[in-house]
Amino acid sequence: VTAAAAPVVDRSRAENLDRADPLARFRERFVFADPDVIYLCGNSLGPPSRAGVAAIDGAIAAWSRRLVDGWEDWLDLPSRIGDRMAGPLLGARRGEVIVSDSTSVNLYKLAAAALGAAAPRSVIVADASDFPTDRYVLAALPAALRLISDGGTAAPTAASVAAVLDADVALVCLSHIGYLSGAVADMAAITAVVHDAGALMLWDLSHSVGCYPIDLESAGVDLAVGCTYKYLSAGPGAPALLYVRSEQQRRLRQPIWGWFGQRDQFAMGPDYDPWPDVRQFLVGTPPVLALAGIGGSIDVVAEAGIGAIRAKALALGELAMDLYRAWLPGLGFRLGSPLEGPARGSHVGLRHGDAQRIHRELGAAGRIVTDFRFPDTIRMGLAPLTTRFVDVWDALAALRQLSY
Amino acid sequence: VTAAAAPVVDRSRAENLDRADPLARFRERFVFADPDVIYLCGNSLGPPSRAGVAAIDGAIAAWSRRLVDGWEDWLDLPSRIGDRMAGPLLGARRGEVIVSDSTSVNLYKLAAAALGAAAPRSVIVADASDFPTDRYVLAALPAALRLISDGGTAAPTAASVAAVLDADVALVCLSHIGYLSGAVADMAAITAVVHDAGALMLWDLSHSVGCYPIDLESAGVDLAVGCTYKYLSAGPGAPALLYVRSEQQRRLRQPIWGWFGQRDQFAMGPDYDPWPDVRQFLVGTPPVLALAGIGGSIDVVAEAGIGAIRAKALALGELAMDLYRAWLPGLGFRLGSPLEGPARGSHVGLRHGDAQRIHRELGAAGRIVTDFRFPDTIRMGLAPLTTRFVDVWDALAALRQLSY
Repeated sequence: VTAAAAPVVDRSRAENLDRADPLARFRERFVFADPDVIYLCGNSLGPPSRAGVAAIDGAIAAWSRRLVDGWEDWLDLPSRIGDRMAGPLLGARRGEVIVSDSTSVNLYKLAAAALGAAAPRSVIVADASDFPTDRYVLAALPAALRLISDGGTAAPTAASVAAVLDADVALVCLSHIGYLSGAVADMAAITAVVHDAGALMLWDLSHSVGCYPIDLESAGVDLAVGCTYKYLSAGPGAPALLYVRSEQQRRLRQPIWGWFGQRDQFAMGPDYDPWPDVRQFLVGTPPVLALAGIGGSIDVVAEAGIGAIRAKALALGELAMDLYRAWLPGLGFRLGSPLEGPARGSHVGLRHGDAQRIHRELGAAGRIVTDFRFPDTIRMGLAPLTTRFVDVWDALAALRQLSY
Repeated sequence: VTAAAAPVVDRSRAENLDRADPLARFRERFVFADPDVIYLCGNSLGPPSRAGVAAIDGAIAAWSRRLVDGWEDWLDLPSRIGDRMAGPLLGARRGEVIVSDSTSVNLYKLAAAALGAAAPRSVIVADASDFPTDRYVLAALPAALRLISDGGTAAPTAASVAAVLDADVALVCLSHIGYLSGAVADMAAITAVVHDAGALMLWDLSHSVGCYPIDLESAGVDLAVGCTYKYLSAGPGAPALLYVRSEQQRRLRQPIWGWFGQRDQFAMGPDYDPWPDVRQFLVGTPPVLALAGIGGSIDVVAEAGIGAIRAKALALGELAMDLYRAWLPGLGFRLGSPLEGPARGSHVGLRHGDAQRIHRELGAAGRIVTDFRFPDTIRMGLAPLTTRFVDVWDALAALRQLSY
């Protein structure tokens, strides 16, 4: 416990950072039943935003008032919410994003569509350390799955991806930010090598949307999916975003032909004749209350601004890394994330042989909420709109106390 | 307008029926912003139930209070809500029903799974007049679609289905109650002829669940899907039910392999190893707020009791048919539904050359909400928990006034 005796900073450093934080006031825009909770799981489940809750309440009131006629406003919600997300959060154009179904279902639709258009190419490249649902969904498709594995805390790179590309590859599917490590992949560079090999690129934005600047347009990305209940605070199990670059919308055909994908939906004609745009990727009736809530929450994120959000993420991460280095390596911790700020998103993985106990005691004693990922990782999300610098200080100090 | 001059009943008949109605008090359990609205679209979008709204509010409060730890309660919501629906509403056993994803996505999963297990059989039988999403979803599968077409207002029968069955048929997919006609198919008889031909039977319960007694167990049904936002008042776009008979759960494998289908979900292992039960049909993260709301609403339906609900549906339908026959055929109306009560569910289609105008004027003048289905059908849902007998009288009287 020698390292513990020599803190390089005093808690006042964190307090000063909070006082100078232009985003500090945003924590008030979210509903924490316990206002003092140190919530370091916004990367897993964002807390409710006041605007989101108000929007859900508003949608319930509209349901009660307009009843079935509410559909006059609701029918195009997946596109309207998608368009509101497109510019400020994704660097996408209008008409390229919808929100409906789960991330898993959206990934299935896009990957199957890409595969269908790529014949005779029949290989999908993915990352062996990617989030389970991504790997499982891809494994079910009629394709050979070629897994890259950089292992450890590194994100896939243009070089590691290029090394497995050949003329059989139809699609490369990777996470922009690793769910466990928080490592950021170079979206533009990887997309470029994938295109050079004649394949399509699908990014999972679940751990970057709302916390990291994304420019799908300039990176030339073909396809993307992403979760809305993490940094976008849309609520547990809220529907996911789906992006299809304009140029790919007519070329691809997704496999689940539902009535919301139908161009002239209420003619209810005999044959499926899909929208010639991103709406062909809709399937069933969209979840109105959840979509309303997402609209409220993304406005809060857009108001804060993704540039300011990323700047605070870097500052929170810097404090966490300084404290980690000062206190934790001597106590059995290893870093499960890149050390350097630019290589890391808004969450940090800390590995420890006794991680499960430490995680549990963090939650029990100090109302410090983190998550544990088997076998040895404590994951701490430093969601910029709801995390205070003192939260980082207090959480790392608690880790230090609980490690023996 | 001769027919209009000779009403066979007085409005007091309807008033007396309301006074004697054991379910009359249930209308108060639902939230109508305008308490006087005559709402005849509960078959399309049920109104909010007070219990459902309270359950959604409760889920938002839990999200704010428990944050990510809420998942301790939420992870198995699709099965818990499914089990609450199974006995009272579906005649299914525990562990046979989940609620998640849309009806369309669930239909895709089940039909693809049935097809996958049936090789070399590769024909799907469906009804040419079924709801569009059913036909479109099936048309996308790698199977030949064989459409039966009884036309008009008749439901498919054991004979009409048997006539197209042979050793190539893998699956028969039909609606229990027709979305347009309200005609009831004989579930047990049709399922029996399908099994005799060695095929599997998938029922779409969207227009029967919550308004009509269903006994999947005794009818020997293999697979079913159904909508929760009609008679179950779960909210616009709420997730759908999915039923797989116990005996089929290990035999079938659905095509969208998401992390909620994985047996040891949080081990996040390298390979997809699905639950050996109905949970393999889950895909992505379930929509918690909507599921909570469904729980509230189905309790209201279960409390009323499906037997009492069906009895009132028959009485409402009898009044509607008496008024129809007395007033409307001479005004250009034709019945788009079976005339006899036992052959009809809880909604009625009335066809008229000027249906679109009449539908619009019904809504504008008298706050009488119905829906219009291209080209000529006014569909009136007589949802038993929220429709008064005087609503039927007033709606038919208004139809008579507006038809010229």
